[in-house]
Amino acid sequence: MNEALKKTEKDFLDFVKKMGAYNEALSLIYWDLRTGAPKQGVDQRTEVIGMLSSEVFKMSTSEEMAAYIAKLSGEEAAASLDAITVKVLEESKKEYDRNKKIPAEEYKEYVILQSKAESVWEEAKEKSDFTLFQPYLEKLVEANKRFIQYWGYEGNKYNTLLDLYEPGVTVDVLDEVFGELRSKIVPLVKSISESDSKPDTSFLYENFPKEKQRDFSLEILKQMGYNFDAGRLDETVHPFATGLNPGDVRVTTKYDEKDFRTAVFGTIHEGGHALYEQNISKDLIGTPLCTGTSMGIHESQSLFYENFVGRSESFWKKNYGLLKQYADGQFDGVELEDFYRAINESKPSLIRIEADELTYPLHVIVRYEIEKGLFNDEIEVKDLPEIWNSKYEEYLGVRPSNDAEGVLQDVHWAGGSFGYFPSYALGYMYAAQLKQALLKDLPDYDQLLEKGDLAPVKEWFTKNVHQYGKLKKPLEILEDVTGEGLNASCLSEYLYEKYGKVYRLKESSR
Amino acid sequence: MNEALKKTEKDFLDFVKKMGAYNEALSLIYWDLRTGAPKQGVDQRTEVIGMLSSEVFKMSTSEEMAAYIAKLSGEEAAASLDAITVKVLEESKKEYDRNKKIPAEEYKEYVILQSKAESVWEEAKEKSDFTLFQPYLEKLVEANKRFIQYWGYEGNKYNTLLDLYEPGVTVDVLDEVFGELRSKIVPLVKSISESDSKPDTSFLYENFPKEKQRDFSLEILKQMGYNFDAGRLDETVHPFATGLNPGDVRVTTKYDEKDFRTAVFGTIHEGGHALYEQNISKDLIGTPLCTGTSMGIHESQSLFYENFVGRSESFWKKNYGLLKQYADGQFDGVELEDFYRAINESKPSLIRIEADELTYPLHVIVRYEIEKGLFNDEIEVKDLPEIWNSKYEEYLGVRPSNDAEGVLQDVHWAGGSFGYFPSYALGYMYAAQLKQALLKDLPDYDQLLEKGDLAPVKEWFTKNVHQYGKLKKPLEILEDVTGEGLNASCLSEYLYEKYGKVYRLKESSR
Repeated sequence: MNEALKKTEKDFLDFVKKMGAYNEALSLIYWDLRTGAPKQGVDQRTEVIGMLSSEVFKMSTSEEMAAYIAKLSGEEAAASLDAITVKVLEESKKEYDRNKKIPAEEYKEYVILQSKAESVWEEAKEKSDFTLFQPYLEKLVEANKRFIQYWGYEGNKYNTLLDLYEPGVTVDVLDEVFGELRSKIVPLVKSISESDSKPDTSFLYENFPKEKQRDFSLEILKQMGYNFDAGRLDETVHPFATGLNPGDVRVTTKYDEKDFRTAVFGTIHEGGHALYEQNISKDLIGTPLCTGTSMGIHESQSLFYENFVGRSESFWKKNYGLLKQYADGQFDGVELEDFYRAINESKPSLIRIEADELTYPLHVIVRYEIEKGLFNDEIEVKDLPEIWNSKYEEYLGVRPSNDAEGVLQDVHWAGGSFGYFPSYALGYMYAAQLKQALLKDLPDYDQLLEKGDLAPVKEWFTKNVHQYGKLKKPLEILEDVTGEGLNASCLSEYLYEKYGKVYRLKESSR
Repeated sequence: MNEALKKTEKDFLDFVKKMGAYNEALSLIYWDLRTGAPKQGVDQRTEVIGMLSSEVFKMSTSEEMAAYIAKLSGEEAAASLDAITVKVLEESKKEYDRNKKIPAEEYKEYVILQSKAESVWEEAKEKSDFTLFQPYLEKLVEANKRFIQYWGYEGNKYNTLLDLYEPGVTVDVLDEVFGELRSKIVPLVKSISESDSKPDTSFLYENFPKEKQRDFSLEILKQMGYNFDAGRLDETVHPFATGLNPGDVRVTTKYDEKDFRTAVFGTIHEGGHALYEQNISKDLIGTPLCTGTSMGIHESQSLFYENFVGRSESFWKKNYGLLKQYADGQFDGVELEDFYRAINESKPSLIRIEADELTYPLHVIVRYEIEKGLFNDEIEVKDLPEIWNSKYEEYLGVRPSNDAEGVLQDVHWAGGSFGYFPSYALGYMYAAQLKQALLKDLPDYDQLLEKGDLAPVKEWFTKNVHQYGKLKKPLEILEDVTGEGLNASCLSEYLYEKYGKVYRLKESSR
């Protein structure tokens, strides 16, 4: 490689690392705001966020960036660049194109619209009145339709939005897998509601002191292989995990003293996200590749640990005794099997974030179908409450009695996030497929959980998923590991087997 | 004012506010590093610090900055600019000049030298061997001598370094006040060491659980008027306070379960710093004026609260009962007067940061005399251990037996901070003079403390000191409030009265 090109490559990486540094500072600011920043400092902190993010945005669309892309995309360059640089360039180009194609003035208006829409949504939800929010949602949808035109699309217009969160996953793919999933889950939910062997859950709601929940959660994080020299656990209102860099990946949780499940399963879930970020290859630090490859693959890690580890019988064979030690006598006289059944109770409900493992995908599918309809001009915003309620009734057998517990429950649309919801269910399917592959390498998976030896599981994921960061695309990871594309059957088989057992369904209705 | 000028003024302020935003992000990063950031993330965080601070440095010395200074310094501009802009411009120009006058290459080398020197100092201190550190200290002194040449000086060369931390305070001033202070304190320390009425301190060292110390410290911060909606208290190794913006000023402390004074007086001290930063005028937010005007004035606030409030009899009349409630029986049977005398024990010692209120200024004076000698070519680096030890013997009556407890004890010189030490003692003198002025407005000061009503004290300081931030220079504040310049007599009179009483000295030896 010639010297000039080498120098350009280095300068480009330095430029990108500077953006990475600003983003790391921003992540710390967000973490701080959500874990105890004094409230009177928030206004000024918001200014700081504005300055830093607009600087990153400017850099990503700068002439300097354009020049790097041009210089490094030539044929000679492509052949001699470092493999990581090639991927970094690809990411940078994608972002450059995406940001540059929207006229600056229009983007500015959109940012203002987003922020207004969020505060109107809040009010609308409080008053449970969709009509307040409707004009803003209409504008947000219109704006995104224009963006789709600017960005272009292949096949279905909605594909362009899906691509923002789950590169490579299209409407064709989702129609197939979500269709199958829906057709499998809906009857299972019905069988369960008719089961005459429902678990007793009364003992779940006793007092479990916060500090004890925290201590138990820390034990579980340790068991999962979460590295406390590269992280910490804090309290927050809406739990999240955040990777500042692989050596600093923080988990947050919240405590409900009348329901320990909030903290315990919440921590395991965020811990799954955190394991991903802690184990990305150090070679990627400071580059835009040093994060999870997509929302869906990220969610596969959190859901794997939350459900396939945390809600499994083997895991509790190891940990139920420990839980009892921390609890205040709450589980005295409760058998392991009854405990296991209780924490796996499934009941159709109206609110997505409170949904159980089995019904959760249906909440996502409702949103997917609505978004797809909106961006293909088959659904109008004004009809959303009615469409929402009817779908809930059809798929889950429950009908919202007002907008707050219906179409207004999530903030996503108010923030202009369309195409995001499918990731939640995708993650679930990825997780089920990955588990199938993992079992081939670790056939003694259940025994490992019973021993509390989760290290081989973490190592398997690091080897097959974590280390790559964004070096591989989501479907590339899936195919490399499982040898096949996305499917719904792994997940639906798992759900049939598990819930058939928990609800003691007859073979015929499984 | 013409439109073009108005626009330049606005652009300049935006430019400066961007630097302020980066600095605020940096402050949060430093706070985080010192209160619990996971250690494996530190290397990458250091990169982030490097990028952000070099960006701020670049901006402060940029052509853009030079252009603003040129355009806004004209006669027409000066007459029509906002008063705050004028001061911001003054600060920016000062920093521009200071940073620009050092050749870029030389400054870069100096930054590397600083960082090497700090790690060598650490090793030297551990091995208690000054000769290891000596060559680095020599280079640091040489570099600063060159800087003095670049920057220029008036009167004494050392003035230029003093000006970095305490604008307006010169060797002439310090020779006079430190001379007087030394001549007053040395004999008082001697009288005390000969007193046959020393306080009993045995009860200070009993077990005082950390959580209880924390709860008591929080009560005291509340009493001081520290605003918890604009701050928080955390644990750290080397306590500090940090003002991110006036709505977010954080205090840190450390707990010694065998000596509650560390946390209690440490928190009051940092709380004093924090009150300053919380009460700076909101008009200054985002500008470089939104911080304490100098190290010395800052220290006057922390020392005022630590010593003139926290170690006073009136304060403990109110709070001794409260302390007993939090303590584990430690003070049962100990009278208030005995408690008061114990917490005011004075004993010459070797380590500055562990020194008591009375002997502390002597530690500072030793360092001042040495620095002055170094930069006037009257002292050579190689002779420092001997000079240091002799001065300690002369002023404090104690002689270090090795370098670690002598000349190597402080990190300041390793970081290239020359001219900083005097601020500690200056703050003390400022505090004593400010107190005298405060007593004229609040003659019932002692009664206020006895009632725990510290609000009027805080309000007095806000009105006379805090609100101005850097709008006024340190000596300007002092003169506006007291009507006079710096003097040592306020402080020495206070010390004579207080320690005369605590050690029951005869009038003749006071």
